[in-house]
Amino acid sequence: MTCKKFRVIKPEIRVLGVDDGVFVFHRKRLVPVVGVVFRGGYWLDGVMHTKVKVDGLDATEKITSMILNSPHYKQLRVVMLNGVTFAGFNVVDIKQLNMQTKLPVIAVTREKPNLTEIHEALKKLPESEERWKAILNAGEILEVFTRSKSEKVCMQISGILEEDARKILQLTSTRSSIPEALRVAHIIASGIS
Amino acid sequence: MTCKKFRVIKPEIRVLGVDDGVFVFHRKRLVPVVGVVFRGGYWLDGVMHTKVKVDGLDATEKITSMILNSPHYKQLRVVMLNGVTFAGFNVVDIKQLNMQTKLPVIAVTREKPNLTEIHEALKKLPESEERWKAILNAGEILEVFTRSKSEKVCMQISGILEEDARKILQLTSTRSSIPEALRVAHIIASGIS
Repeated sequence: MTCKKFRVIKPEIRVLGVDDGVFVFHRKRLVPVVGVVFRGGYWLDGVMHTKVKVDGLDATEKITSMILNSPHYKQLRVVMLNGVTFAGFNVVDIKQLNMQTKLPVIAVTREKPNLTEIHEALKKLPESEERWKAILNAGEILEVFTRSKSEKVCMQISGILEEDARKILQLTSTRSSIPEALRVAHIIASGIS
Repeated sequence: MTCKKFRVIKPEIRVLGVDDGVFVFHRKRLVPVVGVVFRGGYWLDGVMHTKVKVDGLDATEKITSMILNSPHYKQLRVVMLNGVTFAGFNVVDIKQLNMQTKLPVIAVTREKPNLTEIHEALKKLPESEERWKAILNAGEILEVFTRSKSEKVCMQISGILEEDARKILQLTSTRSSIPEALRVAHIIASGIS
């Protein structure tokens, strides 16, 4: 793991928010995944996209390529994901994503992930051990108050200090309890799928 | 024409910005067109999309349907287009768009459209008279200073008073010389195509 310690977190820090679109289960094999570049919590600077398989094993690799091939890559300081499961149970291994992009990764969810339920669900899928390992690689589930003392979200981190990740979530959650880049990535991914 | 006179223009007025994606000429028959709902010049509220034919005649109809079928339709107060030509010379008739959506329409361009050049180009296409009529229906080309006294854009309007259209462009051009909804629609349409 390459752990980035931020000397200072600028208000216009370039962050990437990644989310997937809605999909009708089994009807479509590929689901659009959208990455949105924001300056802090205010300005949209860019959009990138890729596609991943429903319940596939390619999310980590596809999101890594999307980031590395983007013209925005050099400006990015942190990657934020809407949780670690995309397109069903296509699990992103945030340790791998951190190592391959050399960027800190923060996975954010509104609700606390229920690991027991996830473990049960994975058992019905091929390569369930590999998926479970990626879930565990996301590490401890930490609670963060973002926009206010009543708006709490959960995060899992890789390659970044807990303190820095907390600050980045607080700085970028300008419009809701989650970072603006993630809120907008969700709207775009839903709007194009 | 249904001409809307605004009693007051709220800072969070819901506007739609519409732009098309980049495309390789002749290789693709359909080009994505993205509509982005903004609250004034600050917050993205929604995304919708449609597809139009390269050099086709369906842009007015497709954009009308996209708007009327959107869950955001009732909140929208004004539609802004990046010019009146989409996907090559698929011309949007802003008078028609105004009548069918019952929403004021403002077409915005950074540069002044060169009508002589457009007229010449249209002659090489089928239904050139219909296209030219739509170009003329866009009406007078008006200049507006948006974000500052050095940032000028051009607009053509339908169903709205010139004074109100000027105010809306000034209010919503928060990040560049064009309204934020149009700047972001361009980034999204380019990022997904």
